[in-house]
Amino acid sequence: MTEADDVEINRQHAEKKARIKAARDRMMAEKIVEKGLLIVHSGNGKGKSSAAFGMALRCLGWGMRVGVVQFIKGDRPTGEKLFFNRFPELCRFVSMGEGFTWETQDRVRDIAAARAAWAEAVAMLQDPGFDFVLLDELNIALRYDYLALDEVLAALQAKLPAQHVVITGRNAKPELLELADLATEMTLLKHPFRQGVKPQRGIEF
Amino acid sequence: MTEADDVEINRQHAEKKARIKAARDRMMAEKIVEKGLLIVHSGNGKGKSSAAFGMALRCLGWGMRVGVVQFIKGDRPTGEKLFFNRFPELCRFVSMGEGFTWETQDRVRDIAAARAAWAEAVAMLQDPGFDFVLLDELNIALRYDYLALDEVLAALQAKLPAQHVVITGRNAKPELLELADLATEMTLLKHPFRQGVKPQRGIEF
Repeated sequence: MTEADDVEINRQHAEKKARIKAARDRMMAEKIVEKGLLIVHSGNGKGKSSAAFGMALRCLGWGMRVGVVQFIKGDRPTGEKLFFNRFPELCRFVSMGEGFTWETQDRVRDIAAARAAWAEAVAMLQDPGFDFVLLDELNIALRYDYLALDEVLAALQAKLPAQHVVITGRNAKPELLELADLATEMTLLKHPFRQGVKPQRGIEF
Repeated sequence: MTEADDVEINRQHAEKKARIKAARDRMMAEKIVEKGLLIVHSGNGKGKSSAAFGMALRCLGWGMRVGVVQFIKGDRPTGEKLFFNRFPELCRFVSMGEGFTWETQDRVRDIAAARAAWAEAVAMLQDPGFDFVLLDELNIALRYDYLALDEVLAALQAKLPAQHVVITGRNAKPELLELADLATEMTLLKHPFRQGVKPQRGIEF
């Protein structure tokens, strides 16, 4: 390729990108609304809770105030729990679950833990002291009917308008997805469990 | 429902969960391998970079050492950049991109920025001082042929065995997915741009 060819390729690139930027600028000029979003991460892939914690990290960077309620996880040390214990001034972090349902094997205790977690969540949804509220694995508590869907939807509709709320867990209820502003499905393409790899610190927990 | 019904429901629940736990324990007993994973987050949904930052947060909780190289983003303040600037002791954070390709409109500068970012990445992949390395938007640099795929694959195959590496961005190359231990596709279900909502702090950046 000659130098002249290269100059021509670069010129065409700049022209094409200028057209893309103009189109994008027009599109973005219409995006003027600021509002607290209701966000749902569902699907059977990894990354639902991780993506919510990543948003929490971004919020902390901007000096926003973060609250986290964990509904199901909770009996074992996790990276997120250790992180927020290390920086307790950054976040109100409440881990109310006593482990997955197959660990506790106790429906009455699971329901009591879910209801206690929900009481914490409701308080955060009405508290202007929280710009970002993460309700981790709330979908699981809804799936097992540990909480009443109507009650949860009503509290989410009544949340503070500027507050962002993220809800994670498999099998999100269709009514919740309907209410959401932003919903992402994490789809499994490949998982290391198939290679006999165990859950590892920093990745799975 | 009588009290006796309730007792019976709880008994059945405990039995079922005990069976699930036994099956799960058998499955997990086979997961004995510990290894540094090559992880890819792709797809057109949100959450690819967020989930990687969430894993970084978990790693920080465990006291693991984290390195981040951002390939494309980089010209504007972001929550993640502000976060790691606030806690510089937690992470080596390098943001080499000068913005999206439609912003720079300069292929020569984009290629130079991608190659400089890649040099940082290669150094981290060989440095036992990093337990977790995030190569944010590397897929974009590969898609535009700013970096040679063979060179990238060879460096990833030669990475330190205990190190976890996460690569994000749309349109992951099939050869990269082939090499990955863990791959997740983030699928868009619903996006607030459709309601005229603009990108907001803590959520999009």
